[in-house]
Parts: sequence; C-alpha cells; structure tokens
Amino acid sequence: MTSTASSLASSKNLSHSAISRSLLQHSSKPISQRTLVIPTIPRNTKNLYIQRYQKLQIRPNSTSITASSFKPELATAPPPLPLPTPPVTKFKIGLCQLSVRPDKERNIGHARKAIEEAAQKGAQLVLLPEIWNSPYSNESFPVNAEDIDAGGDVSPSTAMLSEVSSRLKITIVVGSIPERCGDKLYNTCCVFGTDGKLKAKHRKIHLFDIDIPGEITFMESKTLTAGDTPTIVDTVLADVGRIGIGICHDIRFLELAMIYAARGAHLLCYPGAFNMTTGQLHWELLQRIRAADNQLYVATCSPARDAGACYVAWGHSTLVGPFGEVLATTDHNEDIIISEIDYSILKQRRASLPLTKQRRGDLYQLVDIQRLNSH
Amino acid sequence: MTSTASSLASSKNLSHSAISRSLLQHSSKPISQRTLVIPTIPRNTKNLYIQRYQKLQIRPNSTSITASSFKPELATAPPPLPLPTPPVTKFKIGLCQLSVRPDKERNIGHARKAIEEAAQKGAQLVLLPEIWNSPYSNESFPVNAEDIDAGGDVSPSTAMLSEVSSRLKITIVVGSIPERCGDKLYNTCCVFGTDGKLKAKHRKIHLFDIDIPGEITFMESKTLTAGDTPTIVDTVLADVGRIGIGICHDIRFLELAMIYAARGAHLLCYPGAFNMTTGQLHWELLQRIRAADNQLYVATCSPARDAGACYVAWGHSTLVGPFGEVLATTDHNEDIIISEIDYSILKQRRASLPLTKQRRGDLYQLVDIQRLNSH
Repeated sequence: MTSTASSLASSKNLSHSAISRSLLQHSSKPISQRTLVIPTIPRNTKNLYIQRYQKLQIRPNSTSITASSFKPELATAPPPLPLPTPPVTKFKIGLCQLSVRPDKERNIGHARKAIEEAAQKGAQLVLLPEIWNSPYSNESFPVNAEDIDAGGDVSPSTAMLSEVSSRLKITIVVGSIPERCGDKLYNTCCVFGTDGKLKAKHRKIHLFDIDIPGEITFMESKTLTAGDTPTIVDTVLADVGRIGIGICHDIRFLELAMIYAARGAHLLCYPGAFNMTTGQLHWELLQRIRAADNQLYVATCSPARDAGACYVAWGHSTLVGPFGEVLATTDHNEDIIISEIDYSILKQRRASLPLTKQRRGDLYQLVDIQRLNSH
Repeated sequence: MTSTASSLASSKNLSHSAISRSLLQHSSKPISQRTLVIPTIPRNTKNLYIQRYQKLQIRPNSTSITASSFKPELATAPPPLPLPTPPVTKFKIGLCQLSVRPDKERNIGHARKAIEEAAQKGAQLVLLPEIWNSPYSNESFPVNAEDIDAGGDVSPSTAMLSEVSSRLKITIVVGSIPERCGDKLYNTCCVFGTDGKLKAKHRKIHLFDIDIPGEITFMESKTLTAGDTPTIVDTVLADVGRIGIGICHDIRFLELAMIYAARGAHLLCYPGAFNMTTGQLHWELLQRIRAADNQLYVATCSPARDAGACYVAWGHSTLVGPFGEVLATTDHNEDIIISEIDYSILKQRRASLPLTKQRRGDLYQLVDIQRLNSH
C-alpha cells in the first residue's frame, strides 16, 4: 500500500428532487413491499458512487431476503482479514502518564526514566502520551518540533527512544511529538521495535479543531498538517501483536478503528490529551466503545494534568479489554500503569458475540479506500 | 427506495499472497513515501469491489494530500443530507418502561394506561419497550405474534395503539411486538402518527444470537426472521422530527446509526431488552456513543426487570443528548420517564465539534447501499 491519496476525482451534478418529508400511509400491503419515502440527495450534490453503481448495474432486484443474502463478508471492503494468532498471547503493557514541562531536555530525561521503570516492572510494550516532549500549544509545536526522518542529533527525542527500546528490548509506541518535515509540522506517533528501529510513524489524521464558546477553543489546523494514512504495525519480534495507531481526536472517528479491526488489529493505541470539557464525558466512553464495537484491546495514554498549563489535559490513561471493560486506569496525576493483555481472549469474545458475522453487508459497507487501492 | 436487497452478486477468487507480517525498517526516507506493508486479502476471498475499482481505474495517484483532498462529503455514500429544521424544535418524550406478563390482554391494557399517563404529562412522542405484549422467549413469540398488516381484531396490540395515538394526538414508537407475516415471525417496531395511522414498520435487522457459556445463551434466529431494511420516518404532523429506528441488538451495529445520521435523523429510537450480562457493561455505553458519534438524540426503552422471567431484562430506559450526555434515566423498575428534547441544540453541537466536516472521505467511506440503489 502506498500512502498517497486515492483519486476519487470525477463527479457530476445530479438532478434529484429536494428532500421529501411525506408520510408513509397505513395500507394492507406490507411496508417491506412498498416504496419507502427516503429523503433523496439534494440537487447539485456530487456523487461519484451513484454513477459507478449504476454503470455496474447492481440496482436492487426483487428477490426476497434470506439469511444467505446478508453477506456479512461484504460489510467491510475489502473483506475483513482473519485475526492473526501471535506466538505469545500474554504480555504486560505499560502506560506512562507523564508530567510535561516547557523544558524539552527535562521531558526527554523524564520519559526515559518512566520507560525504564515500566520495563523494570515487566512491560514489553510501553505507551507514552500525546505531545510528551513539549507543552500542547500552537506556540510550542514549532519550537519543539524535530525532524524525525533526519534522526540523530536533529531528533533528540527519537534518538533517546531508539536507544532505550534497543537496550531494554521493548516495543515503544511513542505517544506523539511535534514533527517537522520540510516546511510542515505534524503531530506524529512513532513506534520503535525491540531492535531500536523505527517501525512505523503515524501522523495525526484528524486534526483537533473545536470551538465551544466559553469552554474551549483550539485549532490544531492553525499550525499542523494532517497525516494522510492509517497506520497499522506488526510487532513480530516482540510478540506484542498487530497494532493500529490513532492520536487523540482520531479516536472520535469510528471508521478508523473499524478499518484497523478489519485489517486484523489486536490492539488500538491512542495517545491523547483530552481536555477538561470533553474529558469527563467522552474520554472513557470513546475508548470503551472502540474496544467493544471492534472486540479488541484499546490502550490510551494522556499527559498528567497541569492546572497551570495553557491546555489542561484530562489524564485518565486506560487499558480497555475487548468487551469494553476497563482493565486498568488512573486519575489525572503522573502515574505508570502496568497491566496484562491476553490476546487469546479476543477469539473467545468474538465467538460468544459474533458481531462480524452478524453484520449486514447487504445494507451497509465500510470501505477502506487505501487497502482497496493497494491491490 | 425499495426494501429489496441489492444484488451484489458476481465475484471471483483472487490470488494474493498470504498475510505478511514483515516489519517496516527504519530509513531516511519518510514513511509516507514508502510502501507500507499491509496484510493482503487471503487467497480465495471473494471481493467484488476490487474488480470494480480496478476497472474504474481509481488506483492511488502520487499527488500529495492537501486539506482540499480530504473529501469529507464522500465519507458517506451517498453524501450526508442536511439536517432538517422542524417547525417546532422542543417537545416532551415519554419512555414507558413497562412490566410484562404472560397475559397479552393485560399487557395491552397496561400499555394503554401508561401511554395515557405519559400523554397527560405532556409527552408528544411516546416510546414503548421491545416485546411489550409478550414474554421475551422463543416459546412465547409465536403464541403472541400478530398479523400487523391485517390489522383490526387480528392485531389487538396495534388496534389499541392506533386508537390511543389518534385519540391523544401523539406519535407512538411502539417498541416491538412479535409479528406474523405468512409463515414467518419478525420482531417488529411500528410507528403510529397523531392521526392513528401506521407510519412505518421496522423489522429487527440484526437478530440477537449470543452464546456466553455459563452466563447467557439466546438465539432469536431459532424462531425469528431478520428484517431487510433500515427504517427512518418523518413525523411531519407531530413535529417530533426525523426518527431512525433500531431494535435492541441493532444498536450494536454502528453502521445503522451512521446511515440514519447521514439520512438526516434527529433522533434514534431503540426499544431494547438488554440482559443481566451485557446490560451493565454495554447498554448505556452504546446509547451514549451512538448519540455522541452521530451528534443526535438517542432514546431507549426496556421492559422493567422481572427476576422470575426466563429472560431477565436490564431495564434502565434512557434519553441521551447529542453530546452523549444522559438527560434522563431510571433503574430497573417500572417507570415512565418524561424528558424534553430540543432539536435546536443539534446544530450548535455540530458547529462546535464539526465531526462530519472533519471526516476523511479520502481514507474511508460508509456506503448506505439501499439509499445508493434508490437513485
């Protein structure tokens, strides 16, 4: 797969009637055989798909539905991949909820100590917070950004992570740091393997733009550029599974979690710095449902709360199991959470409640555009 | 739109390599320009879409992504409809969490009284529980099933609902009853308008088959047939908005909620009888996230708990607002919840947190197959 965009280019205007709000009327004819009044697409709306489907002549036929026509394997396109069975299914994960200061050098040393402590406690996979080497602000991003691809002295944060992951023989999902690439800045999560090598780099796909008057206004898009690809990584050497990566606001987009699940992920890692407005209401809710809907593990890691910072993080880093159950969590203070993951549970859960098999590919379909285009 | 299935018929075997678990290696080349190792589709997997997309030559191009290429309007196909503005945005909803007994006649009279009480307290829209006229069991479904389309004496439950909705000038989303149609049984939700007419009929799309050894085993598919169409209804006369309907297990399928949101729903109604195993963990979670993800209202209604029944319902009927906040709820006992809905809040929430505009139609797309095929 390449990370470039698909070219969903051509489209034309359609001439459908405006939204109809007519009512269905009672009749002796079963509703399933009547024409339901569904709002149509507004005039001038571009829709490439209609043209394609029309060309391909897959308009509805008159055959009645039977269970065999549910086509659950078509509910995601391409069809879901089987869940891989890692050689080792049980391991410990460490979530390092770190305090963050304006001094980048201090943050790097502080993170190193936390990773060492997590590893000492048995963690084979360590997750750091979103933007852990810099305050979370549009002013601080350019000051603390690093050229990750250049590496070495130009990127002291990733140099530390490469060294420590190799020395301790652990996998690190690095939360995120501001990344400079040419004239652009990204909010970027790196994954380092047990050999100290960079295994994947996820640039936040959905930038955090929010405006709730009197409560919170933040526009990441003022300074940052959005990433252009979902990121899934297999950690073969370390046996810590197939991991899908999202950063903070990415967790709100259920499609991303679903396409990771369909790509065979065991675990989703979301470093994230939710705030005091949305944190209490949404942070745990989003983690639990992404896990329960997709029947996989979800791990999150936030910076510790600093009431004096310009952006106050909610904290509450958490590990959630595949039934949406909170396995380990903490409050808003600095902390290191160590908890066990057991991937053998995933297949049990999916057998008990076979959501994937129950999906209705005859009614809806989630398309993973990059995976589709990679073939 | 018709309710018949789309004919996603033709397919062929593909010859792709087995899943690769290779690692990405660190290099000075930015990952976004490298070929990422994504597991490919297993041999012999049917995939109609690949053929179609290949024919249509929409393979990725090499153009770098810019914000203008995010194509949020393509994240659902057809593109989302604008949210309608009802003439009246505020009204009261009543959720009747009813006790259910083996005696159907008692259940009908009992429901009538509850609806009258809710209307007296100002409810313009009343929601009843899943399977409120019969015990929830595969043995009871055929005994208590009614031929809704025949109406009259053959369907005493809907006859009562037609009379009471017309007399009280309210809209009733009828939870569900077992429906007999020919030689098939369905779990069916009716919507009656202020004129006493049947406005829509939703047959549970996702049947509840679960098997958690030692905790719960239930197989609706033993006796019931699944519905074949999503159901959305405009309640023009009553100004209670555009309502998407799901029944219990339907709430687990986020695609259904999303296609309702894309069809311009203000409110999703889910009559549902979650159980003692999944109720505590998932019932509120699912309601809150369907509301928060789709930025609309979600109302649910359960039977009251009967510890002596063969299937013990969780209870906890609830109204959730468009930020995922619980606006009104109850415990497991019989109760009538009256709460206010204000649709004007929906546009505010969507302006503050513009999830629809932030979606990445260049990366994923949810296809509403019936709406697509209806054009």
